[in-house]
Amino acid sequence: MTKIVIIGGVAGGASAAARARRLDESSEIIMFERGAYISFANCGLPYHIAGDISERDDLLLQTPDGFSTRFNVDVRVLQEVTAIDSEQKQVSIKNLSNGETYIESYDKLVLSPGAAPIMPPLPGLDLPHIYSLRNLPDMDRIIDDMQRHKPQHATVVGGGFIGLEMVEALTERGIKTTLLELGPQVMAPVDAEMAKPLHQELEGHGVDLRLNTALEAVERASSAKRKLKLNLSNNKTLTTDMLIMAIGVKPETSLAKAAGLELGNLGGIKVNQEMQSSDPDIYAVGDAVEDLHWVSQQSAFIPLAGPANRQGRLAANNIFGAKQAYKQTQGTAICKVFDLAVASTGLNEKQLSAQGISYEKVYVHSASHASYYPGAESVNLKLLFCPETGTILGAQAVGKDGIDKRIDVLAVAQRAGLKVEDLQDLELCYAPPFGSAKDPVNQIGFVASNVRNGSHKICHSHEIDNLSDSQMILDVRNPQELLNNGAIPGALNIPLDQLRDRLDELPKDMEILIYCFVGLRGYVAYRQLANQGFKAKNLSGGYKTWLNMR
Amino acid sequence: MTKIVIIGGVAGGASAAARARRLDESSEIIMFERGAYISFANCGLPYHIAGDISERDDLLLQTPDGFSTRFNVDVRVLQEVTAIDSEQKQVSIKNLSNGETYIESYDKLVLSPGAAPIMPPLPGLDLPHIYSLRNLPDMDRIIDDMQRHKPQHATVVGGGFIGLEMVEALTERGIKTTLLELGPQVMAPVDAEMAKPLHQELEGHGVDLRLNTALEAVERASSAKRKLKLNLSNNKTLTTDMLIMAIGVKPETSLAKAAGLELGNLGGIKVNQEMQSSDPDIYAVGDAVEDLHWVSQQSAFIPLAGPANRQGRLAANNIFGAKQAYKQTQGTAICKVFDLAVASTGLNEKQLSAQGISYEKVYVHSASHASYYPGAESVNLKLLFCPETGTILGAQAVGKDGIDKRIDVLAVAQRAGLKVEDLQDLELCYAPPFGSAKDPVNQIGFVASNVRNGSHKICHSHEIDNLSDSQMILDVRNPQELLNNGAIPGALNIPLDQLRDRLDELPKDMEILIYCFVGLRGYVAYRQLANQGFKAKNLSGGYKTWLNMR
Repeated sequence: MTKIVIIGGVAGGASAAARARRLDESSEIIMFERGAYISFANCGLPYHIAGDISERDDLLLQTPDGFSTRFNVDVRVLQEVTAIDSEQKQVSIKNLSNGETYIESYDKLVLSPGAAPIMPPLPGLDLPHIYSLRNLPDMDRIIDDMQRHKPQHATVVGGGFIGLEMVEALTERGIKTTLLELGPQVMAPVDAEMAKPLHQELEGHGVDLRLNTALEAVERASSAKRKLKLNLSNNKTLTTDMLIMAIGVKPETSLAKAAGLELGNLGGIKVNQEMQSSDPDIYAVGDAVEDLHWVSQQSAFIPLAGPANRQGRLAANNIFGAKQAYKQTQGTAICKVFDLAVASTGLNEKQLSAQGISYEKVYVHSASHASYYPGAESVNLKLLFCPETGTILGAQAVGKDGIDKRIDVLAVAQRAGLKVEDLQDLELCYAPPFGSAKDPVNQIGFVASNVRNGSHKICHSHEIDNLSDSQMILDVRNPQELLNNGAIPGALNIPLDQLRDRLDELPKDMEILIYCFVGLRGYVAYRQLANQGFKAKNLSGGYKTWLNMR
Repeated sequence: MTKIVIIGGVAGGASAAARARRLDESSEIIMFERGAYISFANCGLPYHIAGDISERDDLLLQTPDGFSTRFNVDVRVLQEVTAIDSEQKQVSIKNLSNGETYIESYDKLVLSPGAAPIMPPLPGLDLPHIYSLRNLPDMDRIIDDMQRHKPQHATVVGGGFIGLEMVEALTERGIKTTLLELGPQVMAPVDAEMAKPLHQELEGHGVDLRLNTALEAVERASSAKRKLKLNLSNNKTLTTDMLIMAIGVKPETSLAKAAGLELGNLGGIKVNQEMQSSDPDIYAVGDAVEDLHWVSQQSAFIPLAGPANRQGRLAANNIFGAKQAYKQTQGTAICKVFDLAVASTGLNEKQLSAQGISYEKVYVHSASHASYYPGAESVNLKLLFCPETGTILGAQAVGKDGIDKRIDVLAVAQRAGLKVEDLQDLELCYAPPFGSAKDPVNQIGFVASNVRNGSHKICHSHEIDNLSDSQMILDVRNPQELLNNGAIPGALNIPLDQLRDRLDELPKDMEILIYCFVGLRGYVAYRQLANQGFKAKNLSGGYKTWLNMR
């Protein structure tokens, strides 16, 4: 009979416990949870604050009693494991409801302590009306503040997943919200031009978005009781009624560290492929763990629910001898931002550049389903790939419909080792309400393949913005589009359908950088010019991507 | 300078023409189209009849003039190619607007004549108010009939894609509609239990669905002018105002046949991997072509828009020497049926059985996104795989939300050669509005993998319905569920959460067939019983799948 002790009762811990019981009926399984709840829907917290999920109980996926009955697991909530003695193979526990302490032995230990919101060492963060959001009590406190004090204005610090979800939740509750973001863009997993539509969406919903702005200190506002005065990095101040800190999370490693377990480069618990820590009887899973990124094979800290669940399950398998390897994390993620979705998988351009990995990028802006069928929305898609091998390095998408589907398809293609050439031939569901005969994923495969085989030379906004003396810009849109949507300064306009008859207006000794609105007509023009012996390149993603680079 | 002649100006033909021009500026390209329109949205026709697509012009994706200007293609509409002389490399054309005939030579010919609706040799199909739907004039005639005669009742023959879309369109127009289907189910690409929800959806929207019913003859109804009397195979008759024939399509091969081109086993034009017919200067693409099914490697006739487009593009590439192989068709398809979507990829159980391919099947019924977030709908998913190798053979899904996404993901996984074990680890987009930490695709991967490694023995409805003397049925749902939803006759009910304490009620010498509502609790129960030394199996897909087998 194996005695399994699990520390942490949410995603990774609960998955490990349930799986262990399914594998073995005779084991003793004890699951400790410091909080009052296990297996709650932590991804749902902002949506209950928003009011989208009306019943708080809906967030309680399993009760301690229900879980205990179903899986014959000794669930101990409000009990904090305070130390691990890996020599003696035992843990010390403090019962938070009565202060008692005791010791429990284990054969195998699973650590799933999660990650905690980062609270930077700024003056004033101990004042009232300042919150972070990790668990149900955090959520309850925010809702309680909203109900009691009826804040008119809230400030969220940090434009990541939780920050953006909180901005939306507060705005939906009628609270005017400022978002402070230290960097030049929200949603770090995607690149700047893919985040630009999010900035517009936030501002379109009345959010006061302040990029490149850090919070430096918090004081009580002298003007009004209960208000906070925020001192910002740009020497401005801001008065607010509620402050949400969402700048990120850090792995909870205090227990592991005190027990002498090895930590990784980034400060997470180091594990091997089987999710064992440096002590082979201690497994670690979920947000507290650091692993190699599947694409870069560099250390990465990717606190996501899917990996946590899979790792918990895998740890249980391996406790019973499965010797399975965790297949690392690719980083597929998605976030709803009002009416937009933004999603990504693999590495982004910033990461590729920082890691010195050679890449090319292409864009398509294409309809989520047949454009003649009602409700089609633009899928704005970016694909990063190795120009030498065609290996998919990453993908990003933003839009109102079909974003999750395209990134899912690309995540599977990437994971399966497909090349950009293979994307051309993927057979995806097509009927007018659902897709197109040439899906955006096929289309981006066409573009990338043409780039790779040399039949489509492309350029990017940076080159357009830094024209050499031997380059010129050709806009192949119709004149009305220039009037309606603007144009890149200095471009010559010859509509695509007139190009064949007006070739004499173009110089053969200059390189012609072509663009249209999304890149498709530009490609047709490029092929004409290339076939006629002109030197040319087409702006990938066209004017639309160029605008998002502003 | 290559002279390329293309016969047919819709999906495959127009794709070939545009691609050819992009590849080569100097070629002469002539595209013949017998009808008045090129490159129209034939998949959109039912939706214009329904009124979803309000503007007829939205179906005209390209005009002959626009296409001609953009791609410098000589587009000749209302001109029918009447013969191919492959010796002389020339075609005979009849100009349908003035009756003139002439001859045009070619270097390379692309045949893209499509497929025509099958009109069975039944008496009376030449009467008025009888239509099929292939092109814009067909659509116009149906709409004209609706406007002039205000039909109160319509009958659609054939429950495939077009039949179902027409049933929905007519119903949306307020016309009471009968659907006659020869077979025991609609939507042949999926298996019977996956079509069952479609039957309920049709009937729920007031459609008079008659399965196992053939049309045998049509007469003028004596009772009322302009009405048709339908004689049915069950000796019943039906009076209707309008009849839509949608029993399927057959490849248009008369030109190819007359030119001496080889046809395949199924009667389509035979092509090699490069889309060349038996005459290497004549390419054939689209619905008129027969190819090997990617999964079975048997001859197949799969008239879908995606493959037609890809084949047209590929034929153009190969005309210019690319020597690319078409990667065959996997058969991914989707259909909207009122509020449901039904989709599939690969082979279904009927095809696997008929072809003698060894398979196992598993089901999950799981939420389209986190069940606590509003709007989650059941994704009813079936996976067919090789029990020996784990190769994915096919997948089917039906439901209100997220159906296209799951089949797309599985189609890519199948195409990439992933095994069912790999589905467990796919990293898909997760946030509560979009998915779950364990997506239905991951879940069906867990189930199939557990079946493969022997840790989850399953059974199917057939075994439940044909119990041997040494088998019994155990229902592990809560008693209230049995009252609300019914139960399988003869089952013993022990709720899962009481099972551990009531094991003495179960015999060790019998095989226990366990079920719950969808199969998940049944699996947990199965693991308990298996771990306690009982002989057991769990009903895959649970009571929900069993009901769909009725």
